[in-house]
Amino acid sequence: MIKALIFDVFGTCVDWRSSVAREVAAALPGVDAEAFATAWRAEYDPAMARIREGGRGYVPLDDLHLENLHKVAADFGITAPDDLSAAWERLDPWPDVVEGLTALRTHHIIAPCSNGSIALMTRLAKHAGLPWDCILGAEIAHDYKPKPAVYLASCGALRLDPSEVLMVAAHNDDLFAARDAGLATAFVARPTEYGPEQARDLEPASDWTIVAKDFADLARHLAP
Amino acid sequence: MIKALIFDVFGTCVDWRSSVAREVAAALPGVDAEAFATAWRAEYDPAMARIREGGRGYVPLDDLHLENLHKVAADFGITAPDDLSAAWERLDPWPDVVEGLTALRTHHIIAPCSNGSIALMTRLAKHAGLPWDCILGAEIAHDYKPKPAVYLASCGALRLDPSEVLMVAAHNDDLFAARDAGLATAFVARPTEYGPEQARDLEPASDWTIVAKDFADLARHLAP
Repeated sequence: MIKALIFDVFGTCVDWRSSVAREVAAALPGVDAEAFATAWRAEYDPAMARIREGGRGYVPLDDLHLENLHKVAADFGITAPDDLSAAWERLDPWPDVVEGLTALRTHHIIAPCSNGSIALMTRLAKHAGLPWDCILGAEIAHDYKPKPAVYLASCGALRLDPSEVLMVAAHNDDLFAARDAGLATAFVARPTEYGPEQARDLEPASDWTIVAKDFADLARHLAP
Repeated sequence: MIKALIFDVFGTCVDWRSSVAREVAAALPGVDAEAFATAWRAEYDPAMARIREGGRGYVPLDDLHLENLHKVAADFGITAPDDLSAAWERLDPWPDVVEGLTALRTHHIIAPCSNGSIALMTRLAKHAGLPWDCILGAEIAHDYKPKPAVYLASCGALRLDPSEVLMVAAHNDDLFAARDAGLATAFVARPTEYGPEQARDLEPASDWTIVAKDFADLARHLAP
């Protein structure tokens, strides 16, 4: 019996690529904004990996985004203003998300289980109109997905057993890790997250608990 | 410049006494429900005090409520079902709260800074319709108010300086502690929290940043 749904956010709920590109284009005229956004995002996992592996203590993603901004700007041969880092607080939702979450929250607790910090997820939710019941994820665990501690701390903060919690993601890797931690899983494909040439995560890679077309379809699967 | 408002919840946002009494009356017919609710609440501060003073590690308030339920039931010469402890998830808001919070959240981040856990605050918000942007408070700090760590961890989770955060409470003690931690303060009297004979917290005990009649009045004070 599923009592709460926790969600990956970047890519699953919001379209980070075109939103960040829009902010980059406004702040850095003349730069290839799509390429810059993609390069910025590419620094995301390596920055977290050092923390996951214990080579660095927990640092909120806001700080990693800022460090990575300056690294990518240097690679592009330019300088970028610090406040461009707040682009990650102004990502737009995929078209089905706000209505889908609103339907889902009538019968379930809904919360992000993202690698974004509480501050970042809170400001992003206000921008995008995501009606979360609370903010869970990396900062609750002081570690980063796909480490099991992040899924387990999010279930624990709700005082639920992992089997009562459904992890929703557009990324098969996230769901493999959540399932290993004992959670139920739902896959929703976002085939243009990485642009029109996307080759990854176009299909479910396992027999997830639910495979849904979008968040409205997910709400139909979970209707009482 | 105030960017976020954080709120005491029990007494300030919700009427715990009459709500708990209603739940007690339903679960324990024949018991003096108001007296039971008041006795249950009276165990709240001593239970937290041991944790604040370091005599016990952090235990979420849900567990303290359950321990205290059985203690008070024994004092009343009865036994109580464990699930009565969830009464604290079903507290009703004061009449001005939902509309006031809804107005306040258009220009500010709003969050509870309560001694209740994330789980408790999340379920209470769903019951009472409190439109929080995120859940802060004791569980973020793993300590209990009025320890400064709770206010400071709540500001830190929003990546704000304490001077950018307004603590809202019906209890002068809470505001003295918040001000000592560097926060702005707002007092809203709840003169019947403890019943018609209430003698405490009827008036502001200091020159708080804002003194408001209710949450609608607070929203008028903070209107841009």
